[in-house]
Amino acid sequence: MSQSKSQPPLNAYLTDSEALTPDVRELVDRRARLLGPAYRLFYQNPVQIERGSGVWLYDKMGTAYLDVYNNVSSVGHCHPRVVEAVCRQFATLSTHTRYLHEDVLAFAEDLLASFPDTLGNVMFTCTGSEANDLAMRIASFATGGTGVIVTENAYHGVTTTLAGMSPSLGVSNPLGMNVWCVPAPESGGDIGRRFADGVRRALSEMAMAGVRPAVMIADSIFASDGVFADPPGFLQEAVTAVQQAGALFIADEVQPGFARTGDQMWGFQRHEVKPDMVSLGKPMGNGYPIAGLVVRPELLAEFGTRTRYFNTFGGNATAIAAGHAVWNIIRDEGLLGNARCVGAYFRECLGAIADRKVIGEIRGAGLFLALDIQRDAKPWPEGALRIVNGLRDRHVLIGATGKASSTLKIRPPLVFGREHVDLFVGRLSEVLSTL
Amino acid sequence: MSQSKSQPPLNAYLTDSEALTPDVRELVDRRARLLGPAYRLFYQNPVQIERGSGVWLYDKMGTAYLDVYNNVSSVGHCHPRVVEAVCRQFATLSTHTRYLHEDVLAFAEDLLASFPDTLGNVMFTCTGSEANDLAMRIASFATGGTGVIVTENAYHGVTTTLAGMSPSLGVSNPLGMNVWCVPAPESGGDIGRRFADGVRRALSEMAMAGVRPAVMIADSIFASDGVFADPPGFLQEAVTAVQQAGALFIADEVQPGFARTGDQMWGFQRHEVKPDMVSLGKPMGNGYPIAGLVVRPELLAEFGTRTRYFNTFGGNATAIAAGHAVWNIIRDEGLLGNARCVGAYFRECLGAIADRKVIGEIRGAGLFLALDIQRDAKPWPEGALRIVNGLRDRHVLIGATGKASSTLKIRPPLVFGREHVDLFVGRLSEVLSTL
Repeated sequence: MSQSKSQPPLNAYLTDSEALTPDVRELVDRRARLLGPAYRLFYQNPVQIERGSGVWLYDKMGTAYLDVYNNVSSVGHCHPRVVEAVCRQFATLSTHTRYLHEDVLAFAEDLLASFPDTLGNVMFTCTGSEANDLAMRIASFATGGTGVIVTENAYHGVTTTLAGMSPSLGVSNPLGMNVWCVPAPESGGDIGRRFADGVRRALSEMAMAGVRPAVMIADSIFASDGVFADPPGFLQEAVTAVQQAGALFIADEVQPGFARTGDQMWGFQRHEVKPDMVSLGKPMGNGYPIAGLVVRPELLAEFGTRTRYFNTFGGNATAIAAGHAVWNIIRDEGLLGNARCVGAYFRECLGAIADRKVIGEIRGAGLFLALDIQRDAKPWPEGALRIVNGLRDRHVLIGATGKASSTLKIRPPLVFGREHVDLFVGRLSEVLSTL
Repeated sequence: MSQSKSQPPLNAYLTDSEALTPDVRELVDRRARLLGPAYRLFYQNPVQIERGSGVWLYDKMGTAYLDVYNNVSSVGHCHPRVVEAVCRQFATLSTHTRYLHEDVLAFAEDLLASFPDTLGNVMFTCTGSEANDLAMRIASFATGGTGVIVTENAYHGVTTTLAGMSPSLGVSNPLGMNVWCVPAPESGGDIGRRFADGVRRALSEMAMAGVRPAVMIADSIFASDGVFADPPGFLQEAVTAVQQAGALFIADEVQPGFARTGDQMWGFQRHEVKPDMVSLGKPMGNGYPIAGLVVRPELLAEFGTRTRYFNTFGGNATAIAAGHAVWNIIRDEGLLGNARCVGAYFRECLGAIADRKVIGEIRGAGLFLALDIQRDAKPWPEGALRIVNGLRDRHVLIGATGKASSTLKIRPPLVFGREHVDLFVGRLSEVLSTL
């Protein structure tokens, strides 16, 4: 079983307590005392946000921060239609799926209509982690296998099983039994062939070890590996290898789903692959906890006969109201097209300031973009960290990702406009000039 | 490793499609088509609920159902203070714990003040399953062990790890590696000694198998085993045995917590035991998804150093607003005292109609009560099922539990009053007379 060699990108979360005002330091200390050592804060000088609206977050002094990172409030912070739907339903009823309720079915129908016909069932959970974990249970019943393939810096969730499939949590976090990490896609040459080679190698190692393969799981944009989106279609060869080996392909759409990549509603559609299951999460309720798993009905037959599934809050009427409102907003406000157009403009503008000295490759799809930060043509994590913190000081919020934490992760709400791109690029140029 | 011999209580969820009106049957069929075969509905004739208020649920015809089962909306369906708190916060901000926010700390302080001093940290998740699963991860880091002790019909959650520790999901649901099922407490004689004997036997089997014990997890009321609450203190001997063996005791308070048992805020306090971790869930946000894990800080040190924890929706500002509102309502409305007094009255009234022919033992604490249904002094699951469905036809909602599914589970919102008890007991008497 191969282990990831990547270092945990913990430095991105190191608070610089020297630099804090007494107020903030008191809050940081109180937080550590109450919530314990496993929590992290963004930025050396953490932000204390009080209010959100559209692409903006505000601290208690009223200072506005441009949110270029939040893919939960993806139709914009506190979108009035989502707020209205949640408040109306929460004041009316918020029970569970063991009573009949029509709304959950209406939402399921709308959602399923956006997937290939083969994916005929949807189950509702509260978090993307619960959705991926459920996928693993179903895969275990359906395949009888245990072998799992993930990429070398993958992140798929917080449960015991998923943390064991998430090498991005760092070398001290143990990987699960029978989890194989394969090299992430990398730009240049035949990316699809190279990625498939790694997957085929894992499959043959499993065969030699007597491990029956169960699943390969990947988000189609390889978010925590550093964002590798192109060319569309490169996933096909690997997915075919997995499915021919009798294993399932789970498309983790928690990050690329819900119009994020600009081309299609779901990231896997850019690659024209046929997942056996698709997990949904983060942006699904614009901040209300809702997630889900879309499945081929044949796979559920065995699971549904041998056991039952009940998630207390999953699919409750308020979650469904939030999810359905977000779904309708994406359609009514043309956010898929906006992600495509503004994303393309964003990439152009970034290209225009890329000097190839500090900024290396620019990658991404739609409003999910990545910039490699380098020095002497090598990954420069300290540089990425300085940029992330420099932007924060200029009231612009982004993050870093990738194996070396040297890639800027740019992932604004989908209501991002050209004027916000201009503002971002201006601030980024300022920060770059200070390096 | 012992396997549970219990049968899954699936019959409680069997819809009798012959008896349904065309409307309901259409909805049931559409649901099965969209959500697949793993979902279950309550009652042979499922209820379609549109609205809730206090202890009442209403269908679309306006028919009122007395809710004697819902421990999620535990301060009453759609309590205006919770609705107000959620709506206000969801309209203002709903981001995550990587920004600083004071409310999460204020709630953490209030919550932790209700626990023994040894339990100094709280971490927030979205569901009780996530909380229990996190407890298992922390226990694994802290003890280096893998052995798990649960009761023979326990239920602790839906993740892969927790389903493997939940024999109540039925014999077809595989138990995890190194999971030992011990006999549940049973009334009569020295219940504590007998329960501890089973636990000690499991510990010595682990020792013989070379398995290092990690945890015993139990909800202090043994909800899915059939509700065994008395005498207070009977858990002590078993917990001591576990802790002396170097393993941790996790009190699963998802069911008995938040004043449910009437004596104290937390079920484990009735037994005067010292858990190493305490998981919280269901009623915590009165329908808004929020859950948590309270932990001894020493246990978190290793986990927090070696990895990090981030739950996208866990501890978000709206979840905290919901949780804090519920917390304050329990105090301001005296719901602990109400659970105690109305619970005692409830038990008296049930005792008064218990003929010892159909109704066997009555057990419970506060507003968590159980009635064994029997025929010829043997468990009578069909009888329990007929009573549950008979009550539903009379617009009163309860459920069944226990190894044989022959125990009525009575668990109303904590705002239940004496007049509701009277109504319940009247309807129950009617149903009993039809058997």
